[in-house]
Amino acid sequence: MGGSIEELTSVNALPGISLVSEAVCQQVVGRPEAFSAVESVFAAMASGAAYNFPVVREAIGHADALYGFKSGFDRAGMVLGVKSGGYWPGNVHKNLTNHQSTVILFDPDTGQLRSLVGGNYLTAVRTAAASAVSIAHLARKDARVLGMVGAGHQSTFQLRAALEQRNFEKVVAWNPHPEYLSRLAAVCEELGVPFEAVEQEQLGAEADVIITITSAFEPLLMKDWIKPGTHIACMGTDTKGKQEVDPELLAVASVFTDEVAQSISIGEAQHAVASGLLSEADITPIGEVINGTHPGRRDDLEITLFDGTGVGLQDLAVASAAVELAQAKGLAGQVSL
Amino acid sequence: MGGSIEELTSVNALPGISLVSEAVCQQVVGRPEAFSAVESVFAAMASGAAYNFPVVREAIGHADALYGFKSGFDRAGMVLGVKSGGYWPGNVHKNLTNHQSTVILFDPDTGQLRSLVGGNYLTAVRTAAASAVSIAHLARKDARVLGMVGAGHQSTFQLRAALEQRNFEKVVAWNPHPEYLSRLAAVCEELGVPFEAVEQEQLGAEADVIITITSAFEPLLMKDWIKPGTHIACMGTDTKGKQEVDPELLAVASVFTDEVAQSISIGEAQHAVASGLLSEADITPIGEVINGTHPGRRDDLEITLFDGTGVGLQDLAVASAAVELAQAKGLAGQVSL
Repeated sequence: MGGSIEELTSVNALPGISLVSEAVCQQVVGRPEAFSAVESVFAAMASGAAYNFPVVREAIGHADALYGFKSGFDRAGMVLGVKSGGYWPGNVHKNLTNHQSTVILFDPDTGQLRSLVGGNYLTAVRTAAASAVSIAHLARKDARVLGMVGAGHQSTFQLRAALEQRNFEKVVAWNPHPEYLSRLAAVCEELGVPFEAVEQEQLGAEADVIITITSAFEPLLMKDWIKPGTHIACMGTDTKGKQEVDPELLAVASVFTDEVAQSISIGEAQHAVASGLLSEADITPIGEVINGTHPGRRDDLEITLFDGTGVGLQDLAVASAAVELAQAKGLAGQVSL
Repeated sequence: MGGSIEELTSVNALPGISLVSEAVCQQVVGRPEAFSAVESVFAAMASGAAYNFPVVREAIGHADALYGFKSGFDRAGMVLGVKSGGYWPGNVHKNLTNHQSTVILFDPDTGQLRSLVGGNYLTAVRTAAASAVSIAHLARKDARVLGMVGAGHQSTFQLRAALEQRNFEKVVAWNPHPEYLSRLAAVCEELGVPFEAVEQEQLGAEADVIITITSAFEPLLMKDWIKPGTHIACMGTDTKGKQEVDPELLAVASVFTDEVAQSISIGEAQHAVASGLLSEADITPIGEVINGTHPGRRDDLEITLFDGTGVGLQDLAVASAAVELAQAKGLAGQVSL
């Protein structure tokens, strides 16, 4: 076959690879673990110790799928890898999740494959952790009403993580399709928090903290509906063309993000930047607030806005946490390749 | 932990994942299987049924490593995936291969992870298969002398694959470090083919087919040293700045490549294109010759040159073959994630 003994011995077998299943991820990575992993990697990004590689995103011309990779390296956490996967809109008819992803981690010292981690559940918790980190660091301490815009698959993850950040006494919510609001109502009932379905303008008038988590392509909240002192986490816009809020809102708010380059190109800030209402220099990486190099919220009247675009390093951070926790609890599979 | 029962049931476990180790790849993917896989995917690329995604390649700032991804989709073969890995120069001191790679295949219909395949051995055979395909389709049928420029790890794979394409009666070879030529001599002795170490100019004068497989940054073969009718496969240049042959040689040769976009940017043609000796339109995808839409070699005096830059689809093609063959022989591991 393919070579002499001398050649073959120079091609090394890989060492053990840890396997962490979707089910084990759900067991070991709760909201606190995801919060901590995401907060740390945002801090590392702001200090220059971690960076994301260019995103690959392709419409493959089959099954209407969008497929690609988000990858990066965190030198502080020594985490190197890639989240691979994409969106297959027909999966729902096969009883599968439309979003399919897997996280693959490598040894930064040797390049060898180290871990294979189911990425579907982790994607939901890392996205929820990002808005939760923004609330923890930017919302007023006395925030009492949480507003939810959007009621899709991700929304309940967002709601649960957000409710842990402040002493919320009420949730108000709006969704383009009101019938899905029962998802959020059920979580609130479970947790004993009063819930009310409201119109968008009323949501703005009542909420101290707002999370938008939709696939909208037009503003769902206008600037004039938002109270002074509100913190808004815009979590839905991750592609050119998507939009959740009035660009004028970004002009009056202090804008923070996970990654500035994504914020201005595919994030919520793309519209305000394109129309000249905001410049790249106006946007602060939230890691600077976590690191203490930026003061964050200045006063109780400031509107703060977090543009959560979603970066590969978030995925790698929660996957790395999943591997460590699963190994510690004896729940990681082990194979050789 | 991370959600209610209702949420968890919507996060599906992945189905079985096939594992194909380095050792099994060596058992099941020989030169004929690699040749066939690479020839087919070059044809699919030329017909538009297969395409490579943008390459990610990063100097990660740790362990002097270059890390990244080559990926693509072959609609004809229904192969979707990524080769992940890179170059860790310190590995040699850890008794590991400096190049470390893993191929990860996904189901094009659902996005689910399907296979994990050791990529170190496969990288060597797929690269050797590319030059072999070029010899099969472009070299003169009566070629009798094979010239090898380079004697590194890849060179013996190249030599073995090339010797199978024509009735070669002699191998002449040159390497910047002559002491490594014993590697090639040993293969020739094993196969009963006369071997001679020669100077570069003599190599050009004798060889009917030449393979260059070095990491050079300057021309090792000049145009005037090359005989009419020679076929040259330049396999070493895969980065901006690398160079193996005189750019004037590309001006007089008929130039073929695996992927034109890579050929003009990071392949051997980059220098001839930059100096205006060659234009993008002068370069033919070798898949067109395989498909029969380009005639290939026109006569016995033409110099043909194959610029083998190395594309992700080659890796996916041989990895997919490895999975099928390993499954058929009961040699693929199986895990769930």
